[in-house]
Amino acid sequence: MRVDDLIGQQGEWLRGTGPESDVVISTRVRLARNLARYPFLTVAPIPVRADIEKHVRQRFEEVLAPRKIEYLPITRMNQIDRTFLFERHLISREHAAGEGERGVAISQDEAVSIMVNEEDHLRLQVLRSGLQLDEAYEQIDRLDTLLAENLHFAFHPRFGFLTACPTNVGTGLRLSVMLHLPAVVMSKQIDRVLNSLTRLNYAVRGLYGEGTQPLGDFFQISNQITLGKSEHEIIEELKKVIPTVLRFEREWRTKLMEERTTELEDKIWRAYGILGNARTISTEETVELLSTLRLGVTLKMITNVPLTTLNELFVVTQPSHLQKLERKLLSPVERDQARAEYVRRRLVGTK
Amino acid sequence: MRVDDLIGQQGEWLRGTGPESDVVISTRVRLARNLARYPFLTVAPIPVRADIEKHVRQRFEEVLAPRKIEYLPITRMNQIDRTFLFERHLISREHAAGEGERGVAISQDEAVSIMVNEEDHLRLQVLRSGLQLDEAYEQIDRLDTLLAENLHFAFHPRFGFLTACPTNVGTGLRLSVMLHLPAVVMSKQIDRVLNSLTRLNYAVRGLYGEGTQPLGDFFQISNQITLGKSEHEIIEELKKVIPTVLRFEREWRTKLMEERTTELEDKIWRAYGILGNARTISTEETVELLSTLRLGVTLKMITNVPLTTLNELFVVTQPSHLQKLERKLLSPVERDQARAEYVRRRLVGTK
Repeated sequence: MRVDDLIGQQGEWLRGTGPESDVVISTRVRLARNLARYPFLTVAPIPVRADIEKHVRQRFEEVLAPRKIEYLPITRMNQIDRTFLFERHLISREHAAGEGERGVAISQDEAVSIMVNEEDHLRLQVLRSGLQLDEAYEQIDRLDTLLAENLHFAFHPRFGFLTACPTNVGTGLRLSVMLHLPAVVMSKQIDRVLNSLTRLNYAVRGLYGEGTQPLGDFFQISNQITLGKSEHEIIEELKKVIPTVLRFEREWRTKLMEERTTELEDKIWRAYGILGNARTISTEETVELLSTLRLGVTLKMITNVPLTTLNELFVVTQPSHLQKLERKLLSPVERDQARAEYVRRRLVGTK
Repeated sequence: MRVDDLIGQQGEWLRGTGPESDVVISTRVRLARNLARYPFLTVAPIPVRADIEKHVRQRFEEVLAPRKIEYLPITRMNQIDRTFLFERHLISREHAAGEGERGVAISQDEAVSIMVNEEDHLRLQVLRSGLQLDEAYEQIDRLDTLLAENLHFAFHPRFGFLTACPTNVGTGLRLSVMLHLPAVVMSKQIDRVLNSLTRLNYAVRGLYGEGTQPLGDFFQISNQITLGKSEHEIIEELKKVIPTVLRFEREWRTKLMEERTTELEDKIWRAYGILGNARTISTEETVELLSTLRLGVTLKMITNVPLTTLNELFVVTQPSHLQKLERKLLSPVERDQARAEYVRRRLVGTK
């Protein structure tokens, strides 16, 4: 597998066909794992880090390659390819930017990715379209079992899995659900929702995870606590919280449709008009307008744009994706033009 | 003639087909005249004002009606009809808002209008499409001669025509040219242009004459001096000034096209996208966006919108025109919606 093989395809989580897809973009499950025989990366000298990568890579080739989960070394990858993987949510920003021996194994449908030498020796991720907590957990659990049979994970009988950062000790499990909450934002209820979630010990982040600002009314909700609870308990708790947020968003959508019809229609159609006509557009404005358009599609105001096209545009309009598509390096000014042209072509079918 | 007869038609000046129409919207010539046997309106008691109106109206019926210049009494006209006439540039804002006996005579093609009992007893106006100073002056001169044969005008051998306000004494002539200067504005050269014009004793006003702010990059240039010069001199002086402004605007359009192509295209196409999709829009935003679109049409970037459609939209999207078209009173909120719908229908042919 080469990075370029991914360009033409749309990962499973991007199809936008999962359950509750009017509000839930994707479900992400992550497990942090470390090898018992090696020091944590925070204290590992450079040669040890290289040993870890080599050891894991060999195992992956035996165990994962036959299952169509292929390993891509990142160390000597250029910046565009690294950012490309980050833009697709296959690796973290830190993993893309970091130095030293590192890599990622990716399944053909992009639902599975395993970062090697990120913060922990291994970071397993399953990303699925819509709300699929059980399905995603089952998939990652099978993967974890398979890897545990082939790699010796650091596990403490009392604390559970040991991790580089204490916040991940125990299950090493992080569940994240990416929600699209435009009606809650438009009706100025978002602070109320976010405060409730924070009080319940959930972390709220932006479109690109840790340290990113909310953009385009996308909010990623994740559990903070990994220790002292079983995986099952963590999942069940989140499964209780999410429906409340979904109901809230849907109620506000209905309310806005009934009480602020023209304002809502105007906002949505203007977004469509600008996206379909602009000649230069930034990433941020694109995300904001696509977000508004997504609301219009889920409310069936906009009927000629499939949700999959929108989901594709969110990913493909990012800097590295654009440069991959155009097969050349683009200056920021050229990117804004290429972005506008691509959106226009996909939305209204004209140049 | 009733006010409603005007709704379906487009006055001569609005066709947008006159000379230099890429920059010059219209040429307006006005003559202030007063009847010698009556006091100025500033000091005329109410019954005298009524006498003036009656006297003039009778003459108009004899002299103008056969020439298809018909008289409309304004006194008992409702506010929408009055504003409608103002929006079409057939009467002034003051004439629309004023109390007391008053009226206006209008030619079938709307090129000629004569306000009765505005600031002066008579205000003759000829309004033509594009730059037509000579043609407009010849037309108003013939009208003036015709009226002078039938009404005794106040004329002083030394000062010329006497008027209610000293600034109009002499020729009573005001020439105004409405210019569209988007490139000069976009390149931040407008202050330079306006300062030069002011130094040459020209007044610069907005789209709706005296006391209005510039909107949509439209600027009305008029002579300030009416005394001590012949009509011929006043016209010749303005005919020297205008080409300089036109050349400046055109040079900047070329410069912007060459040096800021994407920015210019983006601005123009976004205007098109918003106008073609908005569900609610204010008068001001409509004028600003139509102005940008007008630039796009004159630069042949937008090829599917005729200049006449744009010119029509400038006029028809105003509050009273919209209410006339919809045949009912509309609240401001309803007007913004009706405006958006009308623009959308005319621009892209969809509801």
